[in-house]
Amino acid sequence: MRERLRGIPLRVTLWDGTSIGLADVPETAEVVVKDRRTLLALVRDPAVGFGDAYAGGRLAVHGDLVRLLEAIYRHWEGTPASLAREKRRWLPNDLRRARENIHYHYDLGNDFYRLWLDEQLVYTCAYFPTAQTGLEAAQVAKLEHVCRKLALRPGENVVEAGCGWGALALHMARHHGVRVRAFNISTEQVRYARERARQEGLSDRVEFVEDDYRNIHGRYDAFVSVGMLEHVGPENYRALGSVIDGSLARHGRGLLHFIGRDRPRALNPWIRKRIFPGAYPPTLGEVTREVLEPASLSVVDVENLRRHYALTLTHWRERFEKAAHSVAEMFDESFVRAWRLYLAGSEVSFTTSYLQLFQLTFARGATETPWTRAELYR
Amino acid sequence: MRERLRGIPLRVTLWDGTSIGLADVPETAEVVVKDRRTLLALVRDPAVGFGDAYAGGRLAVHGDLVRLLEAIYRHWEGTPASLAREKRRWLPNDLRRARENIHYHYDLGNDFYRLWLDEQLVYTCAYFPTAQTGLEAAQVAKLEHVCRKLALRPGENVVEAGCGWGALALHMARHHGVRVRAFNISTEQVRYARERARQEGLSDRVEFVEDDYRNIHGRYDAFVSVGMLEHVGPENYRALGSVIDGSLARHGRGLLHFIGRDRPRALNPWIRKRIFPGAYPPTLGEVTREVLEPASLSVVDVENLRRHYALTLTHWRERFEKAAHSVAEMFDESFVRAWRLYLAGSEVSFTTSYLQLFQLTFARGATETPWTRAELYR
Repeated sequence: MRERLRGIPLRVTLWDGTSIGLADVPETAEVVVKDRRTLLALVRDPAVGFGDAYAGGRLAVHGDLVRLLEAIYRHWEGTPASLAREKRRWLPNDLRRARENIHYHYDLGNDFYRLWLDEQLVYTCAYFPTAQTGLEAAQVAKLEHVCRKLALRPGENVVEAGCGWGALALHMARHHGVRVRAFNISTEQVRYARERARQEGLSDRVEFVEDDYRNIHGRYDAFVSVGMLEHVGPENYRALGSVIDGSLARHGRGLLHFIGRDRPRALNPWIRKRIFPGAYPPTLGEVTREVLEPASLSVVDVENLRRHYALTLTHWRERFEKAAHSVAEMFDESFVRAWRLYLAGSEVSFTTSYLQLFQLTFARGATETPWTRAELYR
Repeated sequence: MRERLRGIPLRVTLWDGTSIGLADVPETAEVVVKDRRTLLALVRDPAVGFGDAYAGGRLAVHGDLVRLLEAIYRHWEGTPASLAREKRRWLPNDLRRARENIHYHYDLGNDFYRLWLDEQLVYTCAYFPTAQTGLEAAQVAKLEHVCRKLALRPGENVVEAGCGWGALALHMARHHGVRVRAFNISTEQVRYARERARQEGLSDRVEFVEDDYRNIHGRYDAFVSVGMLEHVGPENYRALGSVIDGSLARHGRGLLHFIGRDRPRALNPWIRKRIFPGAYPPTLGEVTREVLEPASLSVVDVENLRRHYALTLTHWRERFEKAAHSVAEMFDESFVRAWRLYLAGSEVSFTTSYLQLFQLTFARGATETPWTRAELYR
């Protein structure tokens, strides 16, 4: 453990008062390990051990959690988690397991997400025209950025795979005059989205379908998926490519917005175990080769919004902390700590470039794509 | 042959006057095959047979060559050339063969290229802010677009791999205040570039090195390569990735500008045999997985300029036709026809989406990349 932590600016204090000054740099945080079992768990499986002990209250962090995690991430950057082990243990996201995994995270209750997301409940990376833009405006800017990249025209038909609480589908219909069929397997989200469409008088132009992306049928001018690919799993990339290919008209185009990687790596095992079961953030190469190449789709544009996701997470974390008391009443303190760690760790994953956020626009070869990207910035 | 050409709007007339109306759509062109040997060559190996016969004058096209090729490309879009055969016959681009291949195309004489390229001799895809922009301005706009994507700052050091006649290196030094080391294995190009640097008083800030990209040494703030990757060959992608990794400073970033593909395919065999020996346009997936992932470099931005390359080629072809008489005096009529076919075929490859043009910006994880891309369009 001493070896692993060498060079990281933190002090570990054990239950008996023993303090291990693991680095000669100024401490940024103190980690208190409250019992022997927790110490052993940390040595055996650092990521899961740390996460579970932190959530369970058997480990405390005194000091700035984000700065501590940042130091750890920067330090371990060169130490890839075992992708081979992740692959051995990987359970394919078939229709049933996909539903279970999505239910586990996204059906925690709309009231919970309303406590700390923006008012439209957009639970994906925002787009901040400047770093001073607020979260509400940045989520609207993201929806609009996506629509502009798709070059939507009134009267067109759009299919959305994984639509969250429906904000993008409703934005496309309202501001770009398109018809949308939006697929989602989260029961709570679909219920909420349908209600919103009804209230806003958009039910005739936006249909929310509670079904898996693999069951998408019909032909559309545009295919869009924001924040779903991370949950698809590598074994389904070709199937996703076939779905896109089969659903796109001759002049069709599409957009995939997803958390990605610089090279294939295992997801943090605690995150996969406790927060996002079945999740796998792919590299750009995995997506182009396995989703797009077999369908002969042209990559038109890729934008890396890594820094925007870090800032989105700062906003979410601050809002979450303000609502921590209400969250504890809804669930318990252990849930609050687990989510605090998840949000802080995610933020740090983006600031340290451990994770990327790719917005990838693609098109069929016959599609007349915009002449330049200048229109996106007018 | 009848089978192959079914649905293509052209008529084939044989040496004895026999005319084969191969389609019931209005003819856009007539292909006259002048002897039996040529017909057999066309059946045996259509691409090489057509190219060699056209260049050799044993086959004539009456009508619009570009429209004819466009019809053929659109028709054969779904018929991939044999990538397996290309791989079997592939000769690795080692240091010696790379030099031979580059010499074959790029050392045809600077006077020749001066006849039809822009005044700075930029022999890669231009960037047209609007489709009405002229070629000269569009090439300057491309140089500037590349510099902005690299976010160059005065005093920084840049390495360029494959620098053509030096236009980008000189532009970076003059307009962005950086120092440049530019590598190239074309003797003629390096000679020209050094002379231009001397005349423009930039020799102290731009060094042109007649050497292979594999011999790049030193640390730089930025790595840039425009139009070289097509000549590298898949067997050297990892070596290129190592060169980039080894040459980039901790906060380094870079740009690769290259002709690419939607999926792995063989290059047109006539082009590879007669125009660009050793060339292979990769897919985005091949580049990200084999060049960038092993070096853990982040993809920051990808822009597909396919339509801009089609327009660049229209300009080149029109200028080439105006200079055809001078070209014939320098070489011969057969050379003029071969280059006419190459330029027309390339233009059509981009209009039909058979080829793509990717500008890919990458960075180390620790690099502070621009907040948005809006600055590129100010």
